[in-house]
This record gives sequence, C-alpha cells and structure tokens, in this order.
Amino acid sequence: MDEKEIKVMQKILNMNDRIAAELREELKEKGILYINLMSSPGSGKTTILEQTARNIEEKMFAIEGDIQTTLDAERLSRAGIEVFQINTGPFGGDCHLEAGWIKSALEECNPEDAKFLFVENIGNLVCPAEFDVGAHINTVVISVTEGEDKPLKYPLAFRNSQLCLISKLDLLPYLDVDIELLKDNIRQINPRIEILELSAKTGEGLSGWLAYLRERGGIE
Amino acid sequence: MDEKEIKVMQKILNMNDRIAAELREELKEKGILYINLMSSPGSGKTTILEQTARNIEEKMFAIEGDIQTTLDAERLSRAGIEVFQINTGPFGGDCHLEAGWIKSALEECNPEDAKFLFVENIGNLVCPAEFDVGAHINTVVISVTEGEDKPLKYPLAFRNSQLCLISKLDLLPYLDVDIELLKDNIRQINPRIEILELSAKTGEGLSGWLAYLRERGGIE
Repeated sequence: MDEKEIKVMQKILNMNDRIAAELREELKEKGILYINLMSSPGSGKTTILEQTARNIEEKMFAIEGDIQTTLDAERLSRAGIEVFQINTGPFGGDCHLEAGWIKSALEECNPEDAKFLFVENIGNLVCPAEFDVGAHINTVVISVTEGEDKPLKYPLAFRNSQLCLISKLDLLPYLDVDIELLKDNIRQINPRIEILELSAKTGEGLSGWLAYLRERGGIE
Repeated sequence: MDEKEIKVMQKILNMNDRIAAELREELKEKGILYINLMSSPGSGKTTILEQTARNIEEKMFAIEGDIQTTLDAERLSRAGIEVFQINTGPFGGDCHLEAGWIKSALEECNPEDAKFLFVENIGNLVCPAEFDVGAHINTVVISVTEGEDKPLKYPLAFRNSQLCLISKLDLLPYLDVDIELLKDNIRQINPRIEILELSAKTGEGLSGWLAYLRERGGIE
C-alpha cells in the first residue's frame, strides 16, 4: 500500500469514529441502551436475542447485519422484536457494519420508545471489532464449541468489548473444552471484561444476562 | 468510495489473481496438491489436519494463517506436519490470506518433496473467500454447530469452493440441526460442490476425506 491509500483509510475511519461518538451520545440522551453483538457465524447471537425478547418487558429494537438473507431478522420479528435489516451483499458483501449504516437505519426507524437497541453484527470474529458502531456496550459472543484458544487468536474483539457472553453451555459435556481455560484466555486479553455464561437453548445462565440488561437499561 | 480508490483496489486484486494463477500452475508441475481450508473460527480445521497427518503416508506441508499466536502451527508440528506460520497481526491484523504471502512462504520453505500443501486460512467465513490464494481445491469447512442457514448467509465461501467438509458430526445428536437441510442449502448456493461429512474427533467419515485426498494427491 502506498502512502496515499493509507491516508484515505484513515479519513474513513475518522469519519466512522465521529459518527459512532455522536450515536453513543444521542442514544444515551434518549435513554436507550445500545449493545453491539459480535461473534463468529453460528455462535448463537440470534437465539440469545430471541430468548432475551421473551424475558424482557421493555421494548427492544434490533438492527440485523447480514451479508445476505433476512432469515435472522425474520426470527427476531417472530420473537416480537422490532427489527431493521442491513444486507451488505449489494454493497460488495462488507464483512462488518459501520456507524454510518446504523445512523441511517435509525433515521429510517426512529425507535424512540425502545429501551434497548441491539446491533447483531455480521458473523465474523475479525473485522467488526475494527469498526466502532457507537454502542454503549460492545459484546463478544463465543460458543463453547469454538475452543479455548479463540481469544488469543482473535484478540481484538475481546479487547474492544466490555462484555463477553460464553454461549451454548449445554454442549459443554460433549466437548473437550476447558471453560476455565477459555475464561483465563479471555481475561488475559482483557482483564476488565465482564464474562457471563449461558445456554439460550436450556435457559441456563440466562437470568444473569437479563439482570445485566435490567441493571443498565434506561439508566446509562 | 470515489473512483480512484476502486481503481487501486482492482489493481491489488489483479495482482493477487496473477500470483494465484502462477502458484496454481507451479505446484501442479511439482505434483503438489494444494488445498485451501476456509471456515469460521473453531470449525475444526486444525483438528482435521492433525487427523489427516496421522493417516496419510505422503508428506504434508502446511501454511498456517492466524492473526495472532502460533498455537495451531504448534499443534500441526506435533502431529508431524512441516508447517510455516503466517501471522497477520503485525500487518494490521488482516482478516484473510493473499496469494503473495503464500508465494513468499513457499520461497522460504521450498517443500519440494511434499505431496500435499494445505493452507489453513484465517478463521473467517467472509473475507478469505474474496481472495484467490492459488489453491487447486478451495475447501470450506462448516461445523454442524453453526446451523443450517450459514451457506445462505455467507454464500461466497461456498460458491468459490470445490469441496465442503461438514465437521463435528459427533455433536449432531445434541443439536437441533437438520444436516439434510444444511446440505440442501450448500447445494442451493453451489450445485457442483462436493460434500463430505466427518468427525475428526471420533474418526467417523474420515476415510471418505482421506480417499478424496489419495485419489487426487500427486495426480493433478
């Protein structure tokens, strides 16, 4: 890459960061808690949101990021969540969401009465962590099926998150995965991160996540 | 994006494609079968390679792509595979490998006597599919834990692969996943793709994968 290209990229990142900061402030003023969910494909983000919607009384709004399809948005809609779909496929199949897209989505939907805004980012443990989407709480979701070493191999998503949800706890008995080592590795990358374990399928640990949300929702 | 930036990107992609085509031809002439493994993090690529090494007599060479750590390279090395590690972390944490990096790795190692070259791409179901690394066989690995809908949501990796390995078969009894629907979705994206199912943990289905390799190794 020559110097010129790097300059262009920095300009884009600066603009993203500016929009992200505005979004963070705007939603705080409106009393909407904004949570960005990042993870590999298939770690259970959508199922967690479905279960959350079934257990939280306050209105949730979700922005669903996918390269293709509206499958996840349809699932969230069936679970009673008002949802806006961003498909990056027509725009080159972008591997992450950016703050400007969230801003545009919110301008179209204007979810004034929601208490929670969830962004389900593109399923990708690498790129979404590089782009601030303006969330109050960046959350990285990792399924126990993914193995203990992933925080070390994909550190940025863990470093840039305030919360880590360890998902699919119900599968732990069938795996050679040491969940304590997984947690040690997460804390090695980010000693200040909060870690919650759950299974959206069986409901195990769900109360901890719901309490986390209730404590923060509408307050910050 | 303005027109200028698009031009720069095309130039980089063209150069990547040129190097990829050269690599493909060069390795064919040397009788080395070159397989690129792409998948989400934690789908089992490394475990599949470990098991392959234990069951294939011919020499395997692997190039291990990770953002950070040499954990997987160490595992492959312990399984008797000669391995070269590419870490993209120091270069901005790139989310994919490119043909030029493989070329440089091969210039340093020169695995003339190998029959198989495996590239374990960065764990990412999105970006690696956008960059031809010059492999003879692009292989997408998807774990049954990831769900049936992933081929529809991340189509490019499936569209650009000749082979799909469905991994972690041993976990199927514990999941609400319909493997026939998963296969239908894979074929909907790519009707010509070959699909093999296996569990590197239990060895189920491994013989099909080994036969696939033996049939093609050193011949093409």
